[in-house]
Amino acid sequence: MNSRTTTEQQTLSEYNRARTLQYLHHHGIASRAQIAKALHLTPAALSKISNHLLASGAIVETGALEGKGNRRSIGLAVNARAFQVLGVKFARSLIEIGLFDLAGKPSFIRELPTVENTTIPQAIESLHAEIRRLLAEHPHILAIGMAVPGPYLRDRGHTAVVSSMGQWRQVNFRAEFEHAFDVPVIIEQDARAGALAQYLFDPNPANENLAYYLLGEGIGLGVIDHGTVINGSLGAATEIGHVSIDVNGKACDCGNVGCLERYCSAVAIHEAMLGNGMLATDSRLTHREACAELFARAQSGDGQARELVERIGTFVGYGCVTICNAFNPSRIVIGDIVAQAGEPLLQRVREVVGERVIPEITQSTQIELSALPTDAAVTGAAAVAITYILDHPSQFFASGT
Amino acid sequence: MNSRTTTEQQTLSEYNRARTLQYLHHHGIASRAQIAKALHLTPAALSKISNHLLASGAIVETGALEGKGNRRSIGLAVNARAFQVLGVKFARSLIEIGLFDLAGKPSFIRELPTVENTTIPQAIESLHAEIRRLLAEHPHILAIGMAVPGPYLRDRGHTAVVSSMGQWRQVNFRAEFEHAFDVPVIIEQDARAGALAQYLFDPNPANENLAYYLLGEGIGLGVIDHGTVINGSLGAATEIGHVSIDVNGKACDCGNVGCLERYCSAVAIHEAMLGNGMLATDSRLTHREACAELFARAQSGDGQARELVERIGTFVGYGCVTICNAFNPSRIVIGDIVAQAGEPLLQRVREVVGERVIPEITQSTQIELSALPTDAAVTGAAAVAITYILDHPSQFFASGT
Repeated sequence: MNSRTTTEQQTLSEYNRARTLQYLHHHGIASRAQIAKALHLTPAALSKISNHLLASGAIVETGALEGKGNRRSIGLAVNARAFQVLGVKFARSLIEIGLFDLAGKPSFIRELPTVENTTIPQAIESLHAEIRRLLAEHPHILAIGMAVPGPYLRDRGHTAVVSSMGQWRQVNFRAEFEHAFDVPVIIEQDARAGALAQYLFDPNPANENLAYYLLGEGIGLGVIDHGTVINGSLGAATEIGHVSIDVNGKACDCGNVGCLERYCSAVAIHEAMLGNGMLATDSRLTHREACAELFARAQSGDGQARELVERIGTFVGYGCVTICNAFNPSRIVIGDIVAQAGEPLLQRVREVVGERVIPEITQSTQIELSALPTDAAVTGAAAVAITYILDHPSQFFASGT
Repeated sequence: MNSRTTTEQQTLSEYNRARTLQYLHHHGIASRAQIAKALHLTPAALSKISNHLLASGAIVETGALEGKGNRRSIGLAVNARAFQVLGVKFARSLIEIGLFDLAGKPSFIRELPTVENTTIPQAIESLHAEIRRLLAEHPHILAIGMAVPGPYLRDRGHTAVVSSMGQWRQVNFRAEFEHAFDVPVIIEQDARAGALAQYLFDPNPANENLAYYLLGEGIGLGVIDHGTVINGSLGAATEIGHVSIDVNGKACDCGNVGCLERYCSAVAIHEAMLGNGMLATDSRLTHREACAELFARAQSGDGQARELVERIGTFVGYGCVTICNAFNPSRIVIGDIVAQAGEPLLQRVREVVGERVIPEITQSTQIELSALPTDAAVTGAAAVAITYILDHPSQFFASGT
């Protein structure tokens, strides 16, 4: 190799290794011939790439595949079970941590003790200790992904608004975690992490144009447009929770008026239940528990609860109308706490979209509840780490060659 | 060359020629060494690419450049003046057509006779004739770009809503124009075309994260996020004109309620002037003329006119607040008819953004009036054609080699 071409060649090799890994991650098992064809690579080039990835342990051979015309070939697959990532989800009063393999399969997901506005520093400290313990226990953890509430200003490392728990704004996630461990830590806005999880772990082809609509203590959105995540210049795009649905409406901590989040987040639902007497004012339920209580009552036929669920569905639907007009995804996946309201909510959302969105767009937009086995945002935190690993194979898989 | 690598090699060559042309288009004049460095290509590879582009006439040598340490090298540039494109802008009652060189410099821009809802078929017919005439007269026209009001459903070829001139919905732009001439016709939503014009013809580095906010007879938006245009699955994303700012507000032809377009488009401004007595109800002004009249009166100190401009600025500002929260661009360029209100409008928009957007985001978002010499959307139509040419050089520039 001419020495002047080394840099170009290295970049190109890394690029093609990443594409090969990404292809295998999306397609499961494939033969060398299938990969080469899909990625427009020559058999010789693909052979070199796959030898490198096999030698480094990033991929494995899976045995003979039946090919066209009875030709047999060897299957390749990402060595997903040999490596792990940690996913950490921050959600105001809740921190969850999970251990996942590279296919997104969790070994466990657990909650840390409930956080209050005044106990955030202690919670951060315990999380450090917990991560150190897990890294020591599981030597094949390659990276850590973290999902934080938006608007998350990526370059600065902090979230810009956290309604009802302002102390989170004092936490600089990058300074706190980025160089704290021996493995890389990648931090992303929570709904964008959820969108990445759908994209990585669900083979639905509509995911190329996907919106993941996170209805939790806050409301977030992650959008993939033609396979590319929409970020915005500071990483603060797709903040649907702070898009106004009524410029004369309720004031929000972010400075805006009529933010969607003020009408149908878990916090807003909890407030509504305290306000209309569905919960005693001295109730000590968390926001998540209050929502679960509402949805259980609605399920059992309570009229007041059903009415509130319908009203929430109307507002969630207004959010979907905005998502259609602003992002025109082919699939909107509704996830997190409020999605637990289930079919009655979904039905109301679809009605509102049917009434307010252009028919051609309504017809070409699937709206559904998240079907990921576990909560998408903590799985999303894992997806953030896995996406990074697949994009930077040489940083994680060193070949002997 | 091994025959098995032909396809890969051709794709790669086309890719690198396109990148070279795009680089030169953005940077004006550059030496082979500068291009090779910027694109991570070897001098040998770049030399092959530039020889091909020179032989085909796509680029020219511009003479000696002063290099580092007094080394001299030859400058290369896109042969922008040797080739032309036509840009056509459709805007409800207005069709404009312009002839541009590849640098976006217009030879002329002219309006076709005003269109009414009932005269659309005749207007389309005259446009066909006009384009045929211009193609015969100017043999170096390579392609035609067209900018149409959104939501434009790209695959289907028609716009989905055109408030106040519904007959436009009957026009299938693709069927009508795509194969009508000997040169390719590329059709794009008007505000996205405007964003492409800013990106192609203005070297501002903030254009990597740009929103072009088109305030005309309708209201549109084109967004470039980290250098990539946001499209949506049907091409109907970034339709800010139909994002609701008040879910209990004015009904819109699109089915939604409280669409931004109902409050501050040229059509809405014209309605407001007829409603408050600023114009006689039998006035025969076009929407554009009515707006010009308002802005002239405000400029001359008329209190009622100033108040209306301020109110419009408030609504335009609400739109900017949504743009910040939904797309987080680093630059918002306000263009078209309503932008003619000038500084008083811009000042009010900035005030509203200052009040309602998170401070970190306000501080990192430039908001300004379009500075393109001519109306950005017809220039945008040209930009759509030029973008296509730079992306597909072999389709337009055949080398003798």
